[in-house]
Amino acid sequence: MIESVKNRRSIRKYKQQDIDPNLLNDLLSTASRVSTIGNMQVYSVVVTRDAEMKAKLAPAHFNQPMVKGAPVVLTFCADFNRFTKWCELRNAKPGYANFLSFMNAATDALLYTQNFCTLAEEAGLGICYLGTVIYNPQQVIETLHLPNLVFPIATITLGYPDECPAQPDRLPIEAIVHEERYCDYTSEMIDKLYAYKESLPENKQFIAENNKETLAQVFTDVRYKKSDNEFMSDNFFKALKQQGFIE
Amino acid sequence: MIESVKNRRSIRKYKQQDIDPNLLNDLLSTASRVSTIGNMQVYSVVVTRDAEMKAKLAPAHFNQPMVKGAPVVLTFCADFNRFTKWCELRNAKPGYANFLSFMNAATDALLYTQNFCTLAEEAGLGICYLGTVIYNPQQVIETLHLPNLVFPIATITLGYPDECPAQPDRLPIEAIVHEERYCDYTSEMIDKLYAYKESLPENKQFIAENNKETLAQVFTDVRYKKSDNEFMSDNFFKALKQQGFIE
Repeated sequence: MIESVKNRRSIRKYKQQDIDPNLLNDLLSTASRVSTIGNMQVYSVVVTRDAEMKAKLAPAHFNQPMVKGAPVVLTFCADFNRFTKWCELRNAKPGYANFLSFMNAATDALLYTQNFCTLAEEAGLGICYLGTVIYNPQQVIETLHLPNLVFPIATITLGYPDECPAQPDRLPIEAIVHEERYCDYTSEMIDKLYAYKESLPENKQFIAENNKETLAQVFTDVRYKKSDNEFMSDNFFKALKQQGFIE
Repeated sequence: MIESVKNRRSIRKYKQQDIDPNLLNDLLSTASRVSTIGNMQVYSVVVTRDAEMKAKLAPAHFNQPMVKGAPVVLTFCADFNRFTKWCELRNAKPGYANFLSFMNAATDALLYTQNFCTLAEEAGLGICYLGTVIYNPQQVIETLHLPNLVFPIATITLGYPDECPAQPDRLPIEAIVHEERYCDYTSEMIDKLYAYKESLPENKQFIAENNKETLAQVFTDVRYKKSDNEFMSDNFFKALKQQGFIE
C-alpha cells in the first residue's frame, strides 16, 4: 500500500518555499496517465502563482486563507473547447455543447485532479481540496478568462507542509460498501455507523461551538444549508448555460 | 514518482483468479483517506462478483466484454441517502435534494474512485474505467436497487492483468496547462498539439477502419456523436429527477 495515501491529511499551512516549475510540470504530466474517456483528455488546469491573481480568486473560495497562503493554486477545468477546436479544424462537426459532454469532461477533470494530488503528496507536497470552486463558478470563470465549453470543477492549494494536523475520522468501511445490491440503511445501522464520529471530542466541541444539539445539525443549519444549496444549484445551471453546456 | 502510476494502462483482459475479499476491503478502506467535501463522505460503492449480476449490468455498458470477464465490477455512486438518513435521525433537516448536492456527491465519488484505482494498480491489479455508467444510469439504478439520492457515477472492472497492451498516447503537457490565465488555442497551436496523436499508425488505422477522412471525424461521427450526446443528456436529467436530485 502507498504510505503517502494511507497517512495523508489535508494541508492548510504551507512553508514560504516555491514549487520548482519543472517538478510541477512533471507531476502534471505524469498525472495525465490517468484513465480518460475515449482518450479525449477533455480537461485543462490553470496554474496560479501570482499574488494578485490569488487575491482575485480568494473571494470565490470564501476567502479561505489557503488561497493567498499557498505558493500555487491549481484550478482544474472540464474542457471541451480544445477538442471542439480540433474537430472544427479537421472537417468534423463537434457535438459537445450539452450536459452529457459536461459530465464526461467533469469526470475526466476529477480523475486527473486526484491522480495529480496522489503524485504531489508522494513527492512531499501538501494539498487542500477546495470544494468552493463549484459554488462560485462565475467568479472563477471571469478571473481565469475561461472560454465557452470550459468550466472550473476542482481547485486545490499546493505547497510544502508547514503543519501536521491529526488525521480526521472516516466512517467505517461497512458504511460505504454494498455487496451485489445496495442494502438501504436501517436506523440501527445509521446509529452504529456514525457512533465513532459522534463520540469524538472534536465533534462534540463542534456542536457546542455552533450552539447545536447534534452534529448533523451543524451540517444542515450551518455548513451545508438547504437554502444555500438551492441558491447555488440555480447558479450552477446559469454558469453551465453561460459556458455553453446547456441551452 | 509512483512507478505504477507512470506505467499504467487500462486492462481489459483478466486472469481467472479471484480477488481476496480482505484485499479488496483494505483497498476500499484506505482509499477513503481521500479528500471529501466537509468530511461528509457522500459516496458508496457496490461490489459485483456474482455472474448473474454481471450479466444484468453488461447491457448498460454496451456489453463490453470486461463486465462479464472481470472477477469484480465496482459501481461507485454519489450518495446523499446515508447522510440524509443520519440527519433525519438526529433532529436535523437535510437539504440535499438538489443539483449542487449531486455535484458535491459526484465529486466525492470520483475522487474516491481514482484513489481506489491508484491503490489497486499499486497492488498489482488492473482496472478499466467504464464511462458508460452515466450513459445508461437507469439500467444500473434498477439492477443495483439504488434508492433516492443515490446515483451511479463511475464503474470500473477489476482483476489480475492477463495482457500488457501498449500505453496509449497522451497530449503534450502544454496542451493541458495554462499559466495564470486560460490562453485560448490558435489553429497553429491545435495543429502542433495534435500532431503526434495524428501521426501514430494506430490512429491512422482507426481512420481507415471507420472510412473517415480525419481522426476527429471518428469521434464526431462514430464514437461520441452529437445526437447520442443530446439523447443521453435528456436521459441523464430524467435519471437525476428519478433519484430526487432535481425537481
